[in-house]
Amino acid sequence: MIQSTTEIRVRYAETDMMGVAYHGNYMAWFEVARVNMMDELGCPYREMEIAGFRLPVLEVSVRYRRPLTFDDRVTIEAVIKERPSLRIRIDYILRCRGGVTAEGFTRHAFVNRDGQPARPPANFRELIEKHFGE
Amino acid sequence: MIQSTTEIRVRYAETDMMGVAYHGNYMAWFEVARVNMMDELGCPYREMEIAGFRLPVLEVSVRYRRPLTFDDRVTIEAVIKERPSLRIRIDYILRCRGGVTAEGFTRHAFVNRDGQPARPPANFRELIEKHFGE
Amino acid sequence: MIQSTTEIRVRYAETDMMGVAYHGNYMAWFEVARVNMMDELGCPYREMEIAGFRLPVLEVSVRYRRPLTFDDRVTIEAVIKERPSLRIRIDYILRCRGGVTAEGFTRHAFVNRDGQPARPPANFRELIEKHFGE
Amino acid sequence: MIQSTTEIRVRYAETDMMGVAYHGNYMAWFEVARVNMMDELGCPYREMEIAGFRLPVLEVSVRYRRPLTFDDRVTIEAVIKERPSLRIRIDYILRCRGGVTAEGFTRHAFVNRDGQPARPPANFRELIEKHFGE
Repeated sequence: MIQSTTEIRVRYAETDMMGVAYHGNYMAWFEVARVNMMDELGCPYREMEIAGFRLPVLEVSVRYRRPLTFDDRVTIEAVIKERPSLRIRIDYILRCRGGVTAEGFTRHAFVNRDGQPARPPANFRELIEKHFGE
Repeated sequence: MIQSTTEIRVRYAETDMMGVAYHGNYMAWFEVARVNMMDELGCPYREMEIAGFRLPVLEVSVRYRRPLTFDDRVTIEAVIKERPSLRIRIDYILRCRGGVTAEGFTRHAFVNRDGQPARPPANFRELIEKHFGE
Repeated sequence: MIQSTTEIRVRYAETDMMGVAYHGNYMAWFEVARVNMMDELGCPYREMEIAGFRLPVLEVSVRYRRPLTFDDRVTIEAVIKERPSLRIRIDYILRCRGGVTAEGFTRHAFVNRDGQPARPPANFRELIEKHFGE
Repeated sequence: MIQSTTEIRVRYAETDMMGVAYHGNYMAWFEVARVNMMDELGCPYREMEIAGFRLPVLEVSVRYRRPLTFDDRVTIEAVIKERPSLRIRIDYILRCRGGVTAEGFTRHAFVNRDGQPARPPANFRELIEKHFGE
């Protein structure tokens, strides 16, 4: 299992007229948590893109438990539970004021610049072996 | 079953550096399709909010089949398959250039101004009876 | 002078907790109006990009006169007043319910794929000559 | 003069197909810098809203000098140069990799819940007197 924690703060721009964070903005927060996880793993997303890899989103799912409001500090726990292969699934748990406010996951494919399925980059494969065994 | 079709056009603002529409923007498109469906049903979302109802999103799910690019005209079919009660599920199918590019759904709760569960407004309940039987 | 009119409708996603359209979303609306103007001129932005041209924004300015709210239909008038050269300025007037709600402008540079200043594409130059004289 | 420095990191969601940060997203970054400045001043924006004040944007202006790309760490300097009264102007300078990448400003009005012009809250007026003299 690979795990990482990130904090975001709800922007005014991210609220809607219901007075809470608009549900569509959670995807960008998942992305922030994912990017941070890759940094912590020593495998920054930015470098992966420069090396020619892309991680397009195949699927996203979110369950909204409790609303978030402007300026809330939200802790996002990102977890890779299953050993990634050509595909990777990341789970997210959002917490604020002591409770879970939302849960979700994204599924991604590793592709090359032409959008063709590709084996993950070598340094990422090594990480996977380190965390999930060979 | 209640069905409605809406066309959106991918904005430059909605693309990302991968050259395609960012996955997080699909939620706003679902919303556009949902709002349009309510209009067509004669039960505009704007009026429902004025009457004191809210329809917060409980869950969202999207499967991305094929990327969308800038200026693509995307047809969004919104469908209510199951009879809504205090909750409502809406399914969405996105089509562009003759093929399905994404599918998803949102689940919502009817709540009042205080965020408490509420029976849908009378005109919406009539619509439901008209389409799904009493 | 070149002139074009576009209608947008304020999305729920574009509102904020003040109950009005978030000011940062006007830039995307300006873009929608700009793209529509290029279409009407017979010089679609999408094709210009495919032909290797980009129109990055050098400057943006907006004066917000009256708030816009969810579902408002907003008419955006885009105007090119001055003859474009390597640079182009577009002015925008937003109207809703009979009054001006905001005004602004964007300034852009024509650049090639490498980000170097470039003469506008031939079909655009012809358009300019048609509207502004040779 | 009141001054504050904030760092943001460009999100993937904030890039566009030109490969750079979309110009419309700078407004949300200005907001992040503004909110942080109010925090540092001991006058959090969140509390000001709870106390019944709003700071709607009357005008925004940005000059884009150099593009920003995904994952860039951008330092935003927010400055109040002129003594605020019923209105307030904030200037912003964005820096990345040793250079200024953009400059801009926002102008705001203090209003009450009904949108009527209002004197700033007492704690903010004290701050102003501390920094700009009585």
